[in-house]
Amino acid sequence: MFERPRPADFHQGSSLPSVVKRVTQREINLYAEASGDFNPIHIDEAFAATTPLGGTIAHGMLILAYASEMMTRAFGRSWLEGGRLSVRFKAAARPEDTITTSGKIDSIEDRDGVPHAHCSLECCNQKGEVIITGEAVVKLQ
Amino acid sequence: MFERPRPADFHQGSSLPSVVKRVTQREINLYAEASGDFNPIHIDEAFAATTPLGGTIAHGMLILAYASEMMTRAFGRSWLEGGRLSVRFKAAARPEDTITTSGKIDSIEDRDGVPHAHCSLECCNQKGEVIITGEAVVKLQ
Repeated sequence: MFERPRPADFHQGSSLPSVVKRVTQREINLYAEASGDFNPIHIDEAFAATTPLGGTIAHGMLILAYASEMMTRAFGRSWLEGGRLSVRFKAAARPEDTITTSGKIDSIEDRDGVPHAHCSLECCNQKGEVIITGEAVVKLQ
Repeated sequence: MFERPRPADFHQGSSLPSVVKRVTQREINLYAEASGDFNPIHIDEAFAATTPLGGTIAHGMLILAYASEMMTRAFGRSWLEGGRLSVRFKAAARPEDTITTSGKIDSIEDRDGVPHAHCSLECCNQKGEVIITGEAVVKLQ
Protein backbone atom coordinates (compact mmCIF):
# COMPACT_ATOMS: atom_id res chain seq x y z
CA MET A 1 0.00 0.00 0.00
CA PHE A 2 2.97 2.31 0.31
CA GLU A 3 5.44 0.58 -1.95
CA ARG A 4 7.04 2.67 -4.63
CA PRO A 5 5.01 2.68 -7.85
CA ARG A 6 6.22 0.92 -10.97
CA PRO A 7 6.23 3.14 -14.05
CA ALA A 8 4.71 0.37 -16.19
CA ASP A 9 1.55 0.51 -14.08
CA PHE A 10 0.74 4.09 -15.11
CA HIS A 11 -0.23 5.59 -18.42
CA GLN A 12 -1.21 8.98 -19.77
CA GLY A 13 -4.98 9.30 -19.46
CA SER A 14 -5.24 6.76 -16.62
CA SER A 15 -7.85 7.60 -14.01
CA LEU A 16 -6.88 7.65 -10.37
CA PRO A 17 -8.94 5.66 -7.84
CA SER A 18 -11.75 7.96 -6.68
CA VAL A 19 -12.34 8.44 -2.98
CA VAL A 20 -15.91 9.11 -1.82
CA LYS A 21 -16.54 10.51 1.66
CA ARG A 22 -19.46 11.92 3.51
CA VAL A 23 -18.55 14.94 5.61
CA THR A 24 -20.18 15.08 9.03
CA GLN A 25 -19.89 17.47 11.94
CA ARG A 26 -18.32 14.58 13.85
CA GLU A 27 -15.45 14.30 11.34
CA ILE A 28 -15.03 18.08 11.38
CA ASN A 29 -14.81 18.04 15.17
CA LEU A 30 -12.29 15.18 15.07
CA TYR A 31 -10.32 17.10 12.49
CA ALA A 32 -10.31 20.18 14.72
CA GLU A 33 -8.92 18.10 17.55
CA ALA A 34 -6.34 16.38 15.33
CA SER A 35 -5.11 19.60 13.77
CA GLY A 36 -5.65 21.87 16.76
CA ASP A 37 -7.62 24.27 14.54
CA PHE A 38 -10.68 25.16 16.60
CA ASN A 39 -11.86 28.14 14.56
CA PRO A 40 -15.55 28.46 15.52
CA ILE A 41 -16.62 28.64 11.88
CA HIS A 42 -15.81 24.93 11.79
CA ILE A 43 -17.11 23.70 15.12
CA ASP A 44 -19.54 26.16 16.73
CA GLU A 45 -22.84 25.53 14.98
CA ALA A 46 -24.79 28.24 16.81
CA PHE A 47 -22.13 30.84 16.13
CA ALA A 48 -21.61 29.77 12.51
CA ALA A 49 -25.34 30.11 11.86
CA THR A 50 -25.08 33.85 12.61
CA THR A 51 -22.34 34.43 10.01
CA PRO A 52 -22.79 35.04 6.27
CA LEU A 53 -21.87 31.39 5.72
CA GLY A 54 -25.02 30.36 7.57
CA GLY A 55 -23.52 27.31 9.25
CA THR A 56 -20.34 25.39 9.92
CA ILE A 57 -17.98 24.53 7.11
CA ALA A 58 -15.32 21.85 6.91
CA HIS A 59 -11.67 22.73 7.15
CA GLY A 60 -10.43 22.98 3.55
CA MET A 61 -7.56 20.69 4.46
CA LEU A 62 -9.99 17.97 5.51
CA ILE A 63 -11.36 17.92 1.98
CA LEU A 64 -7.88 18.11 0.53
CA ALA A 65 -7.02 15.06 2.63
CA TYR A 66 -9.43 13.04 0.53
CA ALA A 67 -7.50 14.00 -2.60
CA SER A 68 -4.26 13.11 -0.87
CA GLU A 69 -5.68 9.71 0.08
CA MET A 70 -6.44 9.12 -3.60
CA MET A 71 -2.83 10.00 -4.42
CA THR A 72 -1.51 7.70 -1.67
CA ARG A 73 -3.65 4.84 -2.96
CA ALA A 74 -2.34 5.39 -6.47
CA PHE A 75 1.29 6.19 -5.80
CA GLY A 76 2.12 5.05 -2.28
CA ARG A 77 5.36 6.16 -0.73
CA SER A 78 6.41 8.29 -3.69
CA TRP A 79 3.47 10.52 -2.91
CA LEU A 80 4.07 10.66 0.81
CA GLU A 81 7.75 11.50 0.49
CA GLY A 82 8.10 13.54 -2.66
CA GLY A 83 4.72 14.61 -4.00
CA ARG A 84 4.04 18.13 -5.24
CA LEU A 85 0.62 19.60 -5.03
CA SER A 86 -1.02 22.81 -6.27
CA VAL A 87 -4.60 23.44 -5.29
CA ARG A 88 -7.23 26.10 -5.32
CA PHE A 89 -9.99 26.19 -2.76
CA LYS A 90 -13.11 27.08 -4.74
CA ALA A 91 -15.92 26.69 -2.24
CA ALA A 92 -16.56 25.44 1.27
CA ALA A 93 -17.80 21.94 2.07
CA ARG A 94 -20.49 21.56 4.70
CA PRO A 95 -21.65 18.84 7.06
CA GLU A 96 -23.65 16.15 5.23
CA ASP A 97 -21.97 16.88 1.91
CA THR A 98 -20.70 13.85 0.04
CA ILE A 99 -17.36 14.57 -1.57
CA THR A 100 -16.01 12.62 -4.51
CA THR A 101 -12.41 12.99 -5.58
CA SER A 102 -11.38 12.35 -9.14
CA GLY A 103 -8.09 12.54 -10.93
CA LYS A 104 -6.21 11.44 -13.97
CA ILE A 105 -2.70 11.31 -15.30
CA ASP A 106 -2.41 14.11 -17.83
CA SER A 107 1.14 13.32 -18.84
CA ILE A 108 4.23 11.39 -17.86
CA GLU A 109 7.40 13.39 -18.22
CA ASP A 110 11.03 12.60 -17.60
CA ARG A 111 13.03 14.82 -15.28
CA ASP A 112 16.67 13.92 -14.78
CA GLY A 113 15.88 10.50 -16.22
CA VAL A 114 13.09 9.82 -13.72
CA PRO A 115 9.50 9.55 -14.97
CA HIS A 116 7.05 11.87 -13.21
CA ALA A 117 3.27 11.65 -13.48
CA HIS A 118 1.49 15.00 -13.84
CA CYS A 119 -2.06 14.61 -12.59
CA SER A 120 -5.14 16.80 -12.44
CA LEU A 121 -7.39 16.50 -9.41
CA GLU A 122 -10.85 17.63 -8.40
CA CYS A 123 -13.05 17.34 -5.31
CA CYS A 124 -16.76 17.87 -5.94
CA ASN A 125 -19.82 17.72 -3.73
CA GLN A 126 -23.02 15.78 -4.41
CA LYS A 127 -24.36 18.67 -6.52
CA GLY A 128 -21.30 18.57 -8.75
CA GLU A 129 -20.01 21.83 -7.31
CA VAL A 130 -16.25 22.03 -7.34
CA ILE A 131 -14.79 22.38 -3.86
CA ILE A 132 -11.11 22.05 -4.76
CA THR A 133 -9.22 21.81 -8.01
CA GLY A 134 -5.58 21.04 -8.32
CA GLU A 135 -2.59 19.48 -9.96
CA ALA A 136 -0.11 17.04 -8.54
CA VAL A 137 3.25 15.72 -9.63
CA VAL A 138 4.73 12.48 -8.34
CA LYS A 139 7.77 10.40 -9.20
CA LEU A 140 7.07 7.02 -10.73
CA GLN A 141 9.75 5.13 -8.85
CA MET B 1 -11.26 35.48 13.11
CA PHE B 2 -12.67 34.88 9.67
CA GLU B 3 -13.46 38.35 8.57
CA ARG B 4 -12.10 39.43 5.23
CA PRO B 5 -8.62 40.97 5.52
CA ARG B 6 -8.02 44.66 5.02
CA PRO B 7 -5.27 45.38 2.49
CA ALA B 8 -3.79 48.08 4.70
CA ASP B 9 -2.98 45.46 7.34
CA PHE B 10 -0.55 43.61 5.07
CA HIS B 11 2.80 44.60 3.63
CA GLN B 12 5.48 43.04 1.50
CA GLY B 13 7.95 41.33 3.81
CA SER B 14 5.43 40.89 6.64
CA SER B 15 5.78 37.66 8.57
CA LEU B 16 2.75 35.45 9.05
CA PRO B 17 1.82 34.26 12.56
CA SER B 18 3.76 31.02 13.16
CA VAL B 19 1.90 27.97 14.37
CA VAL B 20 3.79 25.52 16.59
CA LYS B 21 2.42 22.00 17.12
CA ARG B 22 3.68 18.81 18.66
CA VAL B 23 2.73 15.76 16.61
CA THR B 24 1.66 12.75 18.64
CA GLN B 25 0.40 9.31 17.71
CA ARG B 26 -2.90 10.37 19.28
CA GLU B 27 -3.33 13.26 16.81
CA ILE B 28 -2.32 10.98 13.94
CA ASN B 29 -4.96 8.46 15.02
CA LEU B 30 -7.59 11.21 15.31
CA TYR B 31 -6.59 12.45 11.91
CA ALA B 32 -6.96 8.96 10.46
CA GLU B 33 -10.46 8.80 11.87
CA ALA B 34 -11.37 12.30 10.68
CA SER B 35 -10.09 11.74 7.16
CA GLY B 36 -10.86 8.05 6.88
CA ASP B 37 -7.26 7.39 5.81
CA PHE B 38 -6.23 4.37 7.84
CA ASN B 39 -3.08 3.46 5.91
CA PRO B 40 -1.09 1.32 8.40
CA ILE B 41 2.05 3.36 7.83
CA HIS B 42 0.30 6.07 9.85
CA ILE B 43 -1.41 4.10 12.60
CA ASP B 44 0.03 0.57 12.97
CA GLU B 45 3.18 1.07 15.01
CA ALA B 46 4.25 -2.59 14.99
CA PHE B 47 3.79 -2.86 11.25
CA ALA B 48 5.42 0.50 10.52
CA ALA B 49 8.48 -0.54 12.50
CA THR B 50 9.10 -3.35 9.97
CA THR B 51 9.14 -0.97 6.99
CA PRO B 52 12.08 1.07 5.67
CA LEU B 53 10.55 4.08 7.44
CA GLY B 54 11.15 2.37 10.79
CA GLY B 55 7.98 3.66 12.43
CA THR B 56 4.75 5.51 11.88
CA ILE B 57 4.66 8.82 10.08
CA ALA B 58 2.08 11.59 10.13
CA HIS B 59 -0.25 12.10 7.20
CA GLY B 60 1.34 14.85 5.10
CA MET B 61 -1.97 16.68 5.11
CA LEU B 62 -1.95 16.84 8.89
CA ILE B 63 1.26 18.85 8.73
CA LEU B 64 -0.08 20.94 5.88
CA ALA B 65 -3.09 21.71 8.06
CA TYR B 66 -0.77 23.61 10.39
CA ALA B 67 0.29 25.83 7.48
CA SER B 68 -3.34 26.32 6.54
CA GLU B 69 -4.16 27.33 10.09
CA MET B 70 -1.45 29.99 9.86
CA MET B 71 -3.07 31.24 6.64
CA THR B 72 -6.53 31.26 8.24
CA ARG B 73 -5.22 33.23 11.21
CA ALA B 74 -3.63 35.76 8.88
CA PHE B 75 -6.26 36.04 6.15
CA GLY B 76 -9.51 34.58 7.51
CA ARG B 77 -12.33 33.93 5.14
CA SER B 78 -10.36 35.00 2.05
CA TRP B 79 -8.11 32.02 2.65
CA LEU B 80 -10.90 29.59 3.35
CA GLU B 81 -12.88 30.52 0.27
CA GLY B 82 -10.39 31.50 -2.36
CA GLY B 83 -6.86 30.58 -1.32
CA ARG B 84 -4.40 28.99 -3.70
CA LEU B 85 -1.69 26.73 -2.43
CA SER B 86 1.31 24.99 -3.97
CA VAL B 87 3.31 22.69 -1.77
CA ARG B 88 6.04 20.12 -1.89
CA PHE B 89 6.27 17.33 0.64
CA LYS B 90 9.97 17.07 1.43
CA ALA B 91 10.11 14.61 4.32
CA ALA B 92 7.83 12.76 6.70
CA ALA B 93 6.95 14.02 10.17
CA ARG B 94 6.90 11.51 13.01
CA PRO B 95 5.22 11.22 16.37
CA GLU B 96 6.86 13.50 18.96
CA ASP B 97 8.13 15.91 16.33
CA THR B 98 7.46 19.57 17.01
CA ILE B 99 6.48 21.37 13.83
CA THR B 100 6.83 25.10 13.38
CA THR B 101 5.22 26.85 10.45
CA SER B 102 6.62 30.08 9.11
CA GLY B 103 5.61 32.31 6.28
CA LYS B 104 5.94 35.76 4.86
CA ILE B 105 4.39 37.97 2.25
CA ASP B 106 6.80 38.04 -0.67
CA SER B 107 4.78 40.47 -2.74
CA ILE B 108 1.39 42.07 -3.11
CA GLU B 109 0.18 42.13 -6.68
CA ASP B 110 -2.95 43.47 -8.31
CA ARG B 111 -5.04 41.12 -10.42
CA ASP B 112 -8.16 42.58 -12.00
CA GLY B 113 -7.85 45.48 -9.58
CA VAL B 114 -7.83 43.23 -6.53
CA PRO B 115 -4.68 43.05 -4.38
CA HIS B 116 -3.38 39.52 -3.83
CA ALA B 117 -0.73 38.54 -1.30
CA HIS B 118 1.86 36.06 -2.57
CA CYS B 119 3.31 34.20 0.40
CA SER B 120 6.05 31.66 0.94
CA LEU B 121 5.50 28.98 3.56
CA GLU B 122 7.59 26.39 5.35
CA CYS B 123 6.96 23.68 7.95
CA CYS B 124 10.06 22.50 9.79
CA ASN B 125 10.64 20.01 12.59
CA GLN B 126 12.58 20.60 15.79
CA LYS B 127 15.87 19.78 14.02
CA GLY B 128 15.20 22.44 11.41
CA GLU B 129 14.50 19.81 8.75
CA VAL B 130 12.04 21.01 6.15
CA ILE B 131 8.91 18.87 6.04
CA ILE B 132 6.90 20.97 3.60
CA THR B 133 7.66 24.03 1.51
CA GLY B 134 5.12 25.98 -0.43
CA GLU B 135 3.63 29.12 -1.79
CA ALA B 136 0.18 30.54 -1.29
CA VAL B 137 -1.82 33.29 -2.91
CA VAL B 138 -4.76 34.98 -1.23
CA LYS B 139 -6.98 37.93 -2.05
CA LEU B 140 -6.68 40.91 0.29
CA GLN B 141 -10.38 41.68 0.41
